[in-house]
Amino acid sequence: MKESVSAGVDSEMKGLISELQTLIRQPSISAKKQGLTECADLVFQIMVRAGIKSEVLNLGRHESNQKKEAIAPIVYGEVKCKMNPDAKTILFYNHYDVQPVEPVEFWDSDPFSGKVEGNYIYGRGSSDDKGELITRIKAVEYFLKKTGDVPCNIKFIVEGEEEIGSVNIEKYLSKYRHKLAADGVIWEFGYVDEKNKPIISLGMKGLLYVELIATGPSQDVHSSLAVLIENPAWRLIQALNTIRSTNGKILIKDWYKEVREFTPDELDNISREPFNEQEFKSHYGVDKFVNDVRGTEVRKALVGMPTCNIAGLIAGYVGQGAKTVLPSTALAKLDFRLVLDMDPKRQLQRLANHLKNYGFGDVGIKFIHGESASRTPLNQPFVKQVKDSAAEAFGVEPIVSVSSSGTGPMHSFVKILGAPCVSVGSTSIYARIHSPNEFARIDLLNKATKCIAVIIEKFSKQR
Amino acid sequence: MKESVSAGVDSEMKGLISELQTLIRQPSISAKKQGLTECADLVFQIMVRAGIKSEVLNLGRHESNQKKEAIAPIVYGEVKCKMNPDAKTILFYNHYDVQPVEPVEFWDSDPFSGKVEGNYIYGRGSSDDKGELITRIKAVEYFLKKTGDVPCNIKFIVEGEEEIGSVNIEKYLSKYRHKLAADGVIWEFGYVDEKNKPIISLGMKGLLYVELIATGPSQDVHSSLAVLIENPAWRLIQALNTIRSTNGKILIKDWYKEVREFTPDELDNISREPFNEQEFKSHYGVDKFVNDVRGTEVRKALVGMPTCNIAGLIAGYVGQGAKTVLPSTALAKLDFRLVLDMDPKRQLQRLANHLKNYGFGDVGIKFIHGESASRTPLNQPFVKQVKDSAAEAFGVEPIVSVSSSGTGPMHSFVKILGAPCVSVGSTSIYARIHSPNEFARIDLLNKATKCIAVIIEKFSKQR
Repeated sequence: MKESVSAGVDSEMKGLISELQTLIRQPSISAKKQGLTECADLVFQIMVRAGIKSEVLNLGRHESNQKKEAIAPIVYGEVKCKMNPDAKTILFYNHYDVQPVEPVEFWDSDPFSGKVEGNYIYGRGSSDDKGELITRIKAVEYFLKKTGDVPCNIKFIVEGEEEIGSVNIEKYLSKYRHKLAADGVIWEFGYVDEKNKPIISLGMKGLLYVELIATGPSQDVHSSLAVLIENPAWRLIQALNTIRSTNGKILIKDWYKEVREFTPDELDNISREPFNEQEFKSHYGVDKFVNDVRGTEVRKALVGMPTCNIAGLIAGYVGQGAKTVLPSTALAKLDFRLVLDMDPKRQLQRLANHLKNYGFGDVGIKFIHGESASRTPLNQPFVKQVKDSAAEAFGVEPIVSVSSSGTGPMHSFVKILGAPCVSVGSTSIYARIHSPNEFARIDLLNKATKCIAVIIEKFSKQR
Repeated sequence: MKESVSAGVDSEMKGLISELQTLIRQPSISAKKQGLTECADLVFQIMVRAGIKSEVLNLGRHESNQKKEAIAPIVYGEVKCKMNPDAKTILFYNHYDVQPVEPVEFWDSDPFSGKVEGNYIYGRGSSDDKGELITRIKAVEYFLKKTGDVPCNIKFIVEGEEEIGSVNIEKYLSKYRHKLAADGVIWEFGYVDEKNKPIISLGMKGLLYVELIATGPSQDVHSSLAVLIENPAWRLIQALNTIRSTNGKILIKDWYKEVREFTPDELDNISREPFNEQEFKSHYGVDKFVNDVRGTEVRKALVGMPTCNIAGLIAGYVGQGAKTVLPSTALAKLDFRLVLDMDPKRQLQRLANHLKNYGFGDVGIKFIHGESASRTPLNQPFVKQVKDSAAEAFGVEPIVSVSSSGTGPMHSFVKILGAPCVSVGSTSIYARIHSPNEFARIDLLNKATKCIAVIIEKFSKQR
């Protein structure tokens, strides 16, 4: 890494911290539709002050559940490369919304304080994703301050609904696909492990989220009538029990049909990804894994195994003590993680066929959300650039991960923009994102900002 | 029925209605510990005004869940027969507590109004059980007003925890077993069918109420980790699925071991109990019954079939939309209805063995409540007396039912007091007990009061 980049970013740190505090202090909870337009405006102002030509884009209102719901705006930003207008374009995808702060009683200070203590900045969004966003903005600002120009074309898309499943990102990408056209996308997050090694992740799993609803009598009835009236909770349990084996295999016909084997490159990479089984088990208080997997199988599961998880289950009386009721409905929330080449809509149809074929055609299915998986190939030149940049900025060889086990709208970016997506960033794996006392580490914000600057420089060399 | 009884009770009706209104207007919700001592005092005053020697008895506080909880008092009442101190003793068992009023928005007027409209008195407890209680008090008052004496010895036990499973009635019965000694018990409720036929019920089913708790990771985790961490909701579903077959049979070893066949008398009676299958199905919105039972099998199930019902089920996120969580625990509330000769503690042990033997020893069992079933034999002389009295008072042949499908502490009364229990009363099967807009019918209150008076007269003839 050039000395000038290092010194230049170091001199930006005071401003970076103060602007990150400003962002944290603006609550922006998408699940509660709280502070979203205010936060979008704030991001717009910070980007404009950094010299990024910005606008707040709005899709307006959205027809959902028979009522119109406001769609959170996105903030678009752009800096054209003056010295080389034909340079490649890099797109930064981030989000300004945050998770709810509950349970608020477990926070040591106000979740929106942005309090700095030594190397730590505390607050909801400090890492996820306001911290990551500010590293991208500050890297661009560094070039603009230094030269009045940027080494390649730069674009930003900052959305406000990532924490509720990026439900409208595909609409934004479609409507503004020419404006957003890019040659590479830096994804919104990036982890750093306990040994300060950056983890460069190249993919995300997909998701099919449904509700199963079993229906019994027309009203809740006294449970003495269970001799005659079938309880929909039993019906639901019988149906669920046909879906997944005790060792985690999904028993729906053709569920795995499109799932391909890992490539030799992927397998080689997976076998080298570090994973501390004992530490993981003791952190989560479990003594064995599903299907008793060990070693490489654990890492293969994280990267590429589909799941069927019960995210929620409810029927009848769940308060204290002994109410004797036979409920009129029972509901399960299922989230299926999907891997590459599995199509959520096709899997939904397979689930419906399964229930019907097993005699559970009376169990209703409500589709809640679907996203496809995505993976950027290991041999993509962009991957090597990001990897080399991270090695320079963090001073240590990064870990490359074939895919995260989580879900994000990466597939939509690849499908609509046709650009490879790579995730790299500043978030410690211990940063307690989504939990109380979320923090960002200032040393990692500094390194990630340098890493983004180096990526921008390397990207300018591409034609 | 003697003309004097009929006219005498008719002349008490104005007072009966007004005192029932007073009782309804005093909320007494045991589930919320609301107004219980106040209502016990009110019952005490009404009984004293009727000429019944009364006292409020108190067990004090009760050790439960590591904290001391107040036990609701009982009201004891007694009238000795002066002309024949050696006469038999009849005991009236009733309760002054009521169900919660929720959902309150479905009530057409204040749940505690006691509003009278034509033949109806509205309010929580109007039928269950303040209406029944007042018929017993007024029948006794009729004799005292008329003769200054009663035809046989009379006792009352009015408890305040019936709606929460009569959790302390056995303690009261044991402590005061000499005081409460009786030769026959008139149970707290009694239904009247849609054709105004009284239903004389001779038994109650038992109950075993437990919670099953499956435990997973030490905290709720992100569901992307479902590839490795077992979800306790799956574990619970697998365990539950081993307990009951799809046709309602309980699959636990020896579950039915002590269950005896119906006697020929019982079978004969059951075959004559009226039951309108079509009306029942259309009322509850179901098109078939568990195990597709029909005809006599339906009535046998109501009277004598054990069940395993899921009264509650909860795990993970049950709000709107798509939260992707893997919960740390999953809970089911099971209520097993038991029949004659099944011991709740023994059945609990069988359930525990079952889970262990099927590899679910990690699924925790929390015992919540247990009661044994009870049945008064059809050929008990007391049954014939009650039946004849009901025929006289209601002017129609009553229906005799071998057992109710519900649960009550009848077994404790039989075990401790050794007296037969018979249920007869004023409650229309459409009286919406436990539901909004509960009512009592004034014509049925009148007939039930006459019926109790006739029972008292007939009982005096016994030696």
